[in-house]
Amino acid sequence: MSTSAGPSTTSSSSSKYPTIVPGGGLILAWQLKGKKVLLVGGGMVAAGRLVNVKDADAHLTVISPRSGLSGEMKHRIDTEKVVDVYHDRSFGGEEDLYDAEGKLYDMVLTAIDDSDLSRSICVMARKLRIPVNVADVPPECDFYFGSLIRRGPLQVMVSTGGKGPKIANQVRTLVERSLPENVGEAISRVGVLRGKLRERVPEQKESGRRMRWMIDVCERWSWDQLAEMTDRDMELILAGWEKGKAPSYVEVKGVTKAYAPTWHSLAKRFFATCPVVGYISPWSAGLLGFAAGAAASLGMVAARRPEALR
Amino acid sequence: MSTSAGPSTTSSSSSKYPTIVPGGGLILAWQLKGKKVLLVGGGMVAAGRLVNVKDADAHLTVISPRSGLSGEMKHRIDTEKVVDVYHDRSFGGEEDLYDAEGKLYDMVLTAIDDSDLSRSICVMARKLRIPVNVADVPPECDFYFGSLIRRGPLQVMVSTGGKGPKIANQVRTLVERSLPENVGEAISRVGVLRGKLRERVPEQKESGRRMRWMIDVCERWSWDQLAEMTDRDMELILAGWEKGKAPSYVEVKGVTKAYAPTWHSLAKRFFATCPVVGYISPWSAGLLGFAAGAAASLGMVAARRPEALR
Repeated sequence: MSTSAGPSTTSSSSSKYPTIVPGGGLILAWQLKGKKVLLVGGGMVAAGRLVNVKDADAHLTVISPRSGLSGEMKHRIDTEKVVDVYHDRSFGGEEDLYDAEGKLYDMVLTAIDDSDLSRSICVMARKLRIPVNVADVPPECDFYFGSLIRRGPLQVMVSTGGKGPKIANQVRTLVERSLPENVGEAISRVGVLRGKLRERVPEQKESGRRMRWMIDVCERWSWDQLAEMTDRDMELILAGWEKGKAPSYVEVKGVTKAYAPTWHSLAKRFFATCPVVGYISPWSAGLLGFAAGAAASLGMVAARRPEALR
Repeated sequence: MSTSAGPSTTSSSSSKYPTIVPGGGLILAWQLKGKKVLLVGGGMVAAGRLVNVKDADAHLTVISPRSGLSGEMKHRIDTEKVVDVYHDRSFGGEEDLYDAEGKLYDMVLTAIDDSDLSRSICVMARKLRIPVNVADVPPECDFYFGSLIRRGPLQVMVSTGGKGPKIANQVRTLVERSLPENVGEAISRVGVLRGKLRERVPEQKESGRRMRWMIDVCERWSWDQLAEMTDRDMELILAGWEKGKAPSYVEVKGVTKAYAPTWHSLAKRFFATCPVVGYISPWSAGLLGFAAGAAASLGMVAARRPEALR
């Protein structure tokens, strides 16, 4: 039994479920580990693509005459040797979509000036069901690349659906500024702790408790604290598992070490416990400061010379 | 001629090119407009997938017995009617990977409890070269979904490469807070202006000048100003094209209108012109406020009763 229904173009926002907002792309983390990618081209755009796919652990084949290689491409191929297979020639035809073992590539990227050749590579790739991206030609792309921020294991992608590269860049800058300096290290350390916990308590039935325990650690430890969590600290934290409670930074490091930081971090900790002022804007802070300053100085004057305020 | 070279595992950071950081996914905006997606399952996870793919304009087929539909899935199918084809039954076999016209689906997502069935759907899809995602089973996924923030045309995806859902969520919250309230509207309006500019100056040879002009607008107008840019404003802005200069908000709105906003936006504009205090933390603001408050009140006391401060 099957029902066919045209999708409605307006979706009510009065529903308790998230509103569907058409017009986006499907943002994905494509898995390239153990996959083979073919990159046709050797210029600056190709060099950007190379970084994208090698960041994702792909096996990479590049086809481009050596005369067309940019400085970065030469560096990646000759010095860093991150290109797994390099063919010093132009794209030859459909047979180039198969690797040395006769297997189809898992993804094809082109970044060349010849738009006719690009189009024909796109058509061949689609016929063979290989996902393809032709740089700068949206209709010949099964997927787009976006503006990516990377901090160790953290990846943040900003996409404005092609509304404007400049404004996408401005959003990217805002997002970059919002990330704690050591966010990459903090996430890496949490990953290590999570692995150790799974080794210590491997049972599938404990997965819910493991997750709640990890949440507990992330809530009790700040970014700075997580980033500086040593392997020894982790052993102490894991020792708390049996008690069903994640020890705090103070419990692990000892009070002296924990409170050694500046007044700034002390104040931060104080305010973090107070939800109302936990997030305070510079404007409100300035106003509050002004009031406090006025009150403090008037109080001092009043204490010394009460008649002055009469 | 071909060169085979093993990729080096360490990449020097002394190079002038970006360092390759392995271990990520390839973050992409997959294009689903005009593509057909098959979703097997009808629970809460399936409902999340449905929103993902309908946000990206896919043609969606759902296979799931009605008895297994979650409240949200029922709402999407029966009330919103955003599911294009619904089959009230279980997955039947390989023939279900072809649509009514006998064409292979472009993507297959499963979110069912039966892990043997999931695995066999994954194997069939891969054999037919259909990208596939089996919820919660990483090895059976060609791609992962991440934590997505959506503001109109803006999409921001946060991925921690599976290091921990809690910490990914914490990063997501930081990123969400960093986005201006009206960022979606501002980007939409910039997209409209860009379309109008392309209509007015369609020549390919002007693409560089068009881009520089759009950058100029985005630099001179704040987020708030871009978000409230009307169609009439755009005509006035576009009138500046021949002069080779994008008019500012003040030039378009007139000084009175432009400065009508609150003291808050005036202060913001003042501080924006001053790079040192352009980005000020609540802490510095509070301290500055305190000093200003003390100075102001002491000044007042001194003016009234100079002897009080002696």
